[in-house]
Amino acid sequence: MSEMIRSLRRDLNEFGDALVLAGADVLESCHPGEHPDNLRAGAMAMPATPEAAAAVVRWCGAHGVAIVPQGGLTGLVGGATSRPGELILSTARLTRIEAIDPLARTATVEAGVTLEVLQAAAAAHGLTPGIDLASRGSATVGGMIATNAGGILAFRNGVMRHQVLGIEAVLPDGGLFSDMTEVMKVSAGPDVKQLLIGSEGAYGFVTRAVLKLESRNPMRATALVGVRHAASALEVVGRFRALPAVQLEGAELMWRRFFADSAAQRGFDTGWLEADAPAVLLLELSAASEEEARTALEDGLAALWEAEAIAGGIVAASLDQARRFWALREESDFIYRLHPAAPSFDVSVPPGSLDGYVATLRSRLAALAGGLDAYVYGHIADGNLHLSVFGEGATDPASRDAIEDAVYDGVAALGGSFSAEHGVGLEKRRAYLAYGNPARRAVAQAIKAALDPNNLFNPGKVPYRAN
Amino acid sequence: MSEMIRSLRRDLNEFGDALVLAGADVLESCHPGEHPDNLRAGAMAMPATPEAAAAVVRWCGAHGVAIVPQGGLTGLVGGATSRPGELILSTARLTRIEAIDPLARTATVEAGVTLEVLQAAAAAHGLTPGIDLASRGSATVGGMIATNAGGILAFRNGVMRHQVLGIEAVLPDGGLFSDMTEVMKVSAGPDVKQLLIGSEGAYGFVTRAVLKLESRNPMRATALVGVRHAASALEVVGRFRALPAVQLEGAELMWRRFFADSAAQRGFDTGWLEADAPAVLLLELSAASEEEARTALEDGLAALWEAEAIAGGIVAASLDQARRFWALREESDFIYRLHPAAPSFDVSVPPGSLDGYVATLRSRLAALAGGLDAYVYGHIADGNLHLSVFGEGATDPASRDAIEDAVYDGVAALGGSFSAEHGVGLEKRRAYLAYGNPARRAVAQAIKAALDPNNLFNPGKVPYRAN
Repeated sequence: MSEMIRSLRRDLNEFGDALVLAGADVLESCHPGEHPDNLRAGAMAMPATPEAAAAVVRWCGAHGVAIVPQGGLTGLVGGATSRPGELILSTARLTRIEAIDPLARTATVEAGVTLEVLQAAAAAHGLTPGIDLASRGSATVGGMIATNAGGILAFRNGVMRHQVLGIEAVLPDGGLFSDMTEVMKVSAGPDVKQLLIGSEGAYGFVTRAVLKLESRNPMRATALVGVRHAASALEVVGRFRALPAVQLEGAELMWRRFFADSAAQRGFDTGWLEADAPAVLLLELSAASEEEARTALEDGLAALWEAEAIAGGIVAASLDQARRFWALREESDFIYRLHPAAPSFDVSVPPGSLDGYVATLRSRLAALAGGLDAYVYGHIADGNLHLSVFGEGATDPASRDAIEDAVYDGVAALGGSFSAEHGVGLEKRRAYLAYGNPARRAVAQAIKAALDPNNLFNPGKVPYRAN
Repeated sequence: MSEMIRSLRRDLNEFGDALVLAGADVLESCHPGEHPDNLRAGAMAMPATPEAAAAVVRWCGAHGVAIVPQGGLTGLVGGATSRPGELILSTARLTRIEAIDPLARTATVEAGVTLEVLQAAAAAHGLTPGIDLASRGSATVGGMIATNAGGILAFRNGVMRHQVLGIEAVLPDGGLFSDMTEVMKVSAGPDVKQLLIGSEGAYGFVTRAVLKLESRNPMRATALVGVRHAASALEVVGRFRALPAVQLEGAELMWRRFFADSAAQRGFDTGWLEADAPAVLLLELSAASEEEARTALEDGLAALWEAEAIAGGIVAASLDQARRFWALREESDFIYRLHPAAPSFDVSVPPGSLDGYVATLRSRLAALAGGLDAYVYGHIADGNLHLSVFGEGATDPASRDAIEDAVYDGVAALGGSFSAEHGVGLEKRRAYLAYGNPARRAVAQAIKAALDPNNLFNPGKVPYRAN
């Protein structure tokens, strides 16, 4: 056990079970999550109360120990990586759902509650958090706040910021900031808790939150549909969004190569799809009854087929088949089995620019090296694309910057972002400095200096202070 | 013409028509809007370009002249009041709708565009800004951003923050901050533009914005319904919100005294209402066709009437009658005709606390003075109540604080806010200090010191710096 853990245990003994501490001996046997360096600090504090969390932050301030906030460790950009000498501050023991108010449609939760647990608790009241992600099983409310999580439903309900009504957090000065309003309307002076949303732990450690819930249709119908390009996928999406009695629950586009390789890896039959379909759209509708959802989906697709607007399609005949459809899209690990260390990206562009962006990207990659290509897939209705580049030289350190430039050049000018929902962390540091908004960066640094003058929280990450 | 205007004209001559300046001679003949002190500064700069606005801010910084940002002057709390020696910076000439993208469902606008103009432009594409306010004719996008406007549809679409995708603003240092992203998903480092939303001009002057638009049902049906209390109104609201093929467009509750006096003032027949109905709910549904909207409304009300869940109701037979229903709720000037200078409030509480809150308020007011009562009305589905206190001693300066305490005590503990949508301005300064969130205040002041060290923007308003 490290000296740091020993000192913490001694100095914060008063908290007893409300503060569990773990040294390298324990953490060695823990899974580090999505980044191998997440647990490198070898020292973790797991408060079970906001007060214990605040005491840890004050202790770190007094001892000059940097803090790395951690949630479910599902982040894909290294925002939770830690280094020896730092202390990990984890929400692992802040896992209570304190209240669900079905009338107000709110949930009051601790930051370590996972999305899946919250979804189940809300579903018992016919409600949903309004956000869904592939990593729902381990992503936590705190982490989703820290990255302003997006996911599958952002086109309909917005991103995490739009679901957050209240936040409690420990600020870098060790004070407990509590703004746990439970109402939609608060115009009571600057809403500074917004800074804690999407800042990846730079300004504090979120301990609790009040989240808005949405109504939830119980029954679903799911289909895969061949489409000719993103624009035609958006037409299909628009058609189903306009239907009165159903809700669109997912509109995930997989460009050909992604879909083909994913299907091949899973032994998924693609005989229903026109052989040259350039992309496949996963559609999910919900309604009050299964029949309504299914009828709306089937009728809609039949009309589109008639109009030759789609290149084949298949409606899931069972929940199990629907799950297999989703697995094609969500279980994207095959990419790294086929192309280890393939560089991956997460951009957003306005929907009308999707096809142009993808065409430009492909020609840029081909110009870099003949065999370079990209898997392209994502949340089509909000213009969020995930990209993984593979082929000759894709993982060559010498070509890394050129590939990044191919992906990011012009995205901001289109009104999009170099990081849609994954955050910046370590992996997107160069992009943040080269392609991020300079005005945003400058103000973020000024606020960092004001709120965390000793750079205690997640140093070396956004907003990347010089000191 | 004042010396200030003369100097500005000379020093910023290069901008020509892009910068119109007005002195006291001109402003004397202008209507000051909702607060008599709005134009007291007697000096106004009306830039027609963001660059001209930035030049004015730099000029003010160099000359130590404080700036009061102004939009449509519809604010009810004095957030736009100005004093001699200050310069008003107005969005009056920033009135271009630059683009509407129907596929992305976004509007790019200058800050001086009024809500009504934007609504009309969006409606041409079957879309809506997703926010609606009684002051739609003069309220501007910039002002709605500055106060994080709420209004009629917040229960469904959220508040102004949820519609803002991008912002361009002049910061206190005179730099043009441009973060005009057009996409829902941006997780690209701290989203500092959020600070410009709801801070009433403390951190900058918004010049342009990208707003999210929502789909819009073209046809509507409107009713007035007698209800027994807020809880029963919420049941009615819940029933109509759950209907699949219609959208709820308004759920405005008027407690008895408000409704009775409003109806009497307008000569509105209330024979359809049970004589002892404690409150009246204005409901509006929309659908693809008028018949669908009307049928859903009539069938729903018939079932509620059958179940004795409502105390009478009337469905508007024409658009004109629907407008008369809305006028009962929105044209609340009668309050001030009947009770000049009646103190008014704007609180939010979780919906389940509404009846308890109103009952407590009435008993507190009665305890203060026998004849004290309150008009109560508001946006019931999000728990936002507007209150005007009248009766013996209501306007007595000696009882002002006691009335405020009666209104505000306990609101924060319920999870609500002392200011739901009107902001703080000058009028709610005492409430901000006595009932606002101290953690929010402290961080807001630290940020003010970092971004506006010379207190150039809207001094004397939130976040009320000491200097």
